[in-house]
Amino acid sequence: MSKSNPGRFFEDFRVGQVLRHATPRTVTEADQALYIALTGSRFALHSSDVFARGLGLPRAPLDDLLVFHLVFGRSVADVSRNAVANLGYAACVFGVPVYPGDTLTAHSRVLGLRETASGKTGVVWVRSTGTNQRGETVLDYVRWVMVNKRDPAAPAPEQVTPDLPEVVEAARLTLPEGLSLAGYDAELAGSADLFDDYEIGERIDHLDGVTLEDAEHQMATRLYQNNARVHFDLHAAQTGRFGKRVVYGGHIISLARALSFNGLANAFRIAAINGGRHTNPSFAGHTIYAWSEVLEKIDLPGRSDVGALRLRTVATKDRPCAEFPLLGPDRNPDPAVVLELDYTVLMPRR
Amino acid sequence: MSKSNPGRFFEDFRVGQVLRHATPRTVTEADQALYIALTGSRFALHSSDVFARGLGLPRAPLDDLLVFHLVFGRSVADVSRNAVANLGYAACVFGVPVYPGDTLTAHSRVLGLRETASGKTGVVWVRSTGTNQRGETVLDYVRWVMVNKRDPAAPAPEQVTPDLPEVVEAARLTLPEGLSLAGYDAELAGSADLFDDYEIGERIDHLDGVTLEDAEHQMATRLYQNNARVHFDLHAAQTGRFGKRVVYGGHIISLARALSFNGLANAFRIAAINGGRHTNPSFAGHTIYAWSEVLEKIDLPGRSDVGALRLRTVATKDRPCAEFPLLGPDRNPDPAVVLELDYTVLMPRR
Amino acid sequence: MSKSNPGRFFEDFRVGQVLRHATPRTVTEADQALYIALTGSRFALHSSDVFARGLGLPRAPLDDLLVFHLVFGRSVADVSRNAVANLGYAACVFGVPVYPGDTLTAHSRVLGLRETASGKTGVVWVRSTGTNQRGETVLDYVRWVMVNKRDPAAPAPEQVTPDLPEVVEAARLTLPEGLSLAGYDAELAGSADLFDDYEIGERIDHLDGVTLEDAEHQMATRLYQNNARVHFDLHAAQTGRFGKRVVYGGHIISLARALSFNGLANAFRIAAINGGRHTNPSFAGHTIYAWSEVLEKIDLPGRSDVGALRLRTVATKDRPCAEFPLLGPDRNPDPAVVLELDYTVLMPRR
Repeated sequence: MSKSNPGRFFEDFRVGQVLRHATPRTVTEADQALYIALTGSRFALHSSDVFARGLGLPRAPLDDLLVFHLVFGRSVADVSRNAVANLGYAACVFGVPVYPGDTLTAHSRVLGLRETASGKTGVVWVRSTGTNQRGETVLDYVRWVMVNKRDPAAPAPEQVTPDLPEVVEAARLTLPEGLSLAGYDAELAGSADLFDDYEIGERIDHLDGVTLEDAEHQMATRLYQNNARVHFDLHAAQTGRFGKRVVYGGHIISLARALSFNGLANAFRIAAINGGRHTNPSFAGHTIYAWSEVLEKIDLPGRSDVGALRLRTVATKDRPCAEFPLLGPDRNPDPAVVLELDYTVLMPRR
Repeated sequence: MSKSNPGRFFEDFRVGQVLRHATPRTVTEADQALYIALTGSRFALHSSDVFARGLGLPRAPLDDLLVFHLVFGRSVADVSRNAVANLGYAACVFGVPVYPGDTLTAHSRVLGLRETASGKTGVVWVRSTGTNQRGETVLDYVRWVMVNKRDPAAPAPEQVTPDLPEVVEAARLTLPEGLSLAGYDAELAGSADLFDDYEIGERIDHLDGVTLEDAEHQMATRLYQNNARVHFDLHAAQTGRFGKRVVYGGHIISLARALSFNGLANAFRIAAINGGRHTNPSFAGHTIYAWSEVLEKIDLPGRSDVGALRLRTVATKDRPCAEFPLLGPDRNPDPAVVLELDYTVLMPRR
Repeated sequence: MSKSNPGRFFEDFRVGQVLRHATPRTVTEADQALYIALTGSRFALHSSDVFARGLGLPRAPLDDLLVFHLVFGRSVADVSRNAVANLGYAACVFGVPVYPGDTLTAHSRVLGLRETASGKTGVVWVRSTGTNQRGETVLDYVRWVMVNKRDPAAPAPEQVTPDLPEVVEAARLTLPEGLSLAGYDAELAGSADLFDDYEIGERIDHLDGVTLEDAEHQMATRLYQNNARVHFDLHAAQTGRFGKRVVYGGHIISLARALSFNGLANAFRIAAINGGRHTNPSFAGHTIYAWSEVLEKIDLPGRSDVGALRLRTVATKDRPCAEFPLLGPDRNPDPAVVLELDYTVLMPRR
């Protein structure tokens, strides 16, 4: 038996199994600085301690998606090392904010299993939870991945398909403790548009584009200690499906969120991800653009100073978004679309 | 009206207008570490808290040019998003040192406007000021950019051309409070040569070369939260003037300064930038070299321990600097020259 | 005389000479975060303050190899700027752990000199020592490099070849003060395999591969303030031996160590490097793989909780390691092998 771990195959998962992930991580200001350098994020709350204190927080919390990637990254060696595809996300709730100095650990519980028709792969649903050093939940989400079977002849497990909400209900959205928007400086945050100014159905072209580089997505993915092989190993990829390294889908989510600053600068916190799909792979050399649509406006109980917007942000490759591409003529995702993300952000009200 | 901001065109500027820039930024040790990783800077003062305390400072301040880029970066969305070219700098004075934990904000005042002969663009002069959380000025400089008009038929504004000094006068150079050079360890700083050892007219080939990578200049430029499109969007660039992403001129300034360590290791602080021109664009794959000339030696009133050198540092692409290239045979800048920077540094005296 | 320093040639070294290196460096959490982003390291001790405190340490120490590279980097301008090749390492002992906030300085003593048969180059042996701000040794090692002569006609110096140990003896291995393995959480560290589970002669394929990028090795090498020209200057390299930039050998060591996490996750500290050879150069585009062999199991006097494993880790380019490549049919190193590293790690015992 070798000491190295080839990762779980579909047969190795059992519904109810809890996987405690390796490598606890103390997060630092450096993770945030690298995140800015790799994604171009410009949101004020994550850039300025002074701005954060003005909102009643002790200092600038880490970017929400950086927390997502750190928790996700911990789960890869146990869940998706042999994944063929990352199929979707649901029920993702951001908990207490994460500050430099916090130490994150993560575990995942297997929620569901379903062998695919081919008999060569299966779908695994897991709920992953990230926790800080006080045991508080910082993130909780479900994802499902298609995983190779070790032995295609192995019998299919009993099929269990978890019941997942289409949207995270408003009651589950959490606000950082002490949050007060009274002194919110919208001009300093980058836009005069607040919750009240957005309308359901409104669409926003985020205008900018950013070109993917192998060195950048590799650095981002390693920063998260995500060791999925498809992102790093060109030698193996050359004989594989794409012939090159695939960009970690989470990096695309981060780029889309960073691009969305131009049009959503006051969306100061992601409270939930309702669902997400990586509709096409991205590679170095592609230029990523994004647009968003307001799906819903949500009043938060007891808060007149802050509301929630449910958004769909769509990212494309090598196609600007002035025409808001989403579906092709055949009603399937447009081939230029690489991401559809349905999520809920917090925004100050007038 | 879309919520996203396409940036100001020439018609949108008015002389006297004050633009308060978005995204306050708390700077950290991580910004300095990334700056070192991206530029190769080796100056002792910015690398060592112990060295800095030996000079009477509380700890290592951020690299001066990192401060410059952070202030510059804040101004891009408001000033130069639609810039055709960054034409020049003047009257740039570095104020109080910036330390990890400081929060920087920036604003710009429009100083001048001049429509160009073509009627399609105009030159905008702005004075940009960076301020820390105590309201102290960390940087103040003038730059001028050529900006597209939205509508070429729009009438030209009244022409206002600011009067700019050719050189920052000695009285405006500021020394960090508490600075004492008594215990300066030149060997540890990397060179035995102090203020007294340099002569006016002396030229120094900095010897080393460093090759530009798209991933590196993109990361540097994003670290500064500078979102000028020409640095990031290959898809758009492919149909543009150069066919590729242009390197942020400030990255070239930083590389030239880092290269200048070999020959100017004791130039521990940039006190002023008198003027600067990006004479040619640089692209990934170019190798940057640099050389410097001593233009002036400046006594600082009341200080026998420190003097100022006015320098011209020239950066080239794909051409080593043993022959000190500057002008071509036609007296125009040599096509290999990408930067001429006229600036003033502080250096210990014997 | 130019102020810039072309670096020492073979004639400039004398046995017994002590070179005090420039640029003291205060290390930070950011150096560690960048190290993770550039190498993919996942060892728990260097990732988590909570984990480190569980072992009796004040917080997470910097990765051992990051310390190695920072000390090595300081020595380059004085020792190996004109090196043709970095020939080997020996007698490398890691001393007190390095924590964020520590300031490192380094010096080297010339141990030996030997002109090569060609008369154009010579071998220089130096012992380099890294010290923290309290004067404690953090690292001490010998390396030897082949250095160009300035003048091939210069007479050969008296030959002095230092006597170097083949292996660092167990008595010289140091354990961090206060280290206690009582509460070691192997599952959280990533593997159930402890000291007791490894056998002499056991070989481990580390499975994963990582492709080199110019932007990444340049950033890593600059982070260490290592300014050896061969890593950065494509313009000069194009007329040189390889036609491209050579990856810093230390970056390969770090990638091999990071890959070795899969199979050696509980090797929480490198205590010594007994010897190492860069058997072939690596370039951007190569994919690095690694495998390890257990050479020796070492009891540490007075410690029943921790033992030492002497390992050989071999890194390859563009060749996975399922067959443990080392020597080719001619008994010379396999051309795919780029690194052989003989080193000693600490690991908890049952």
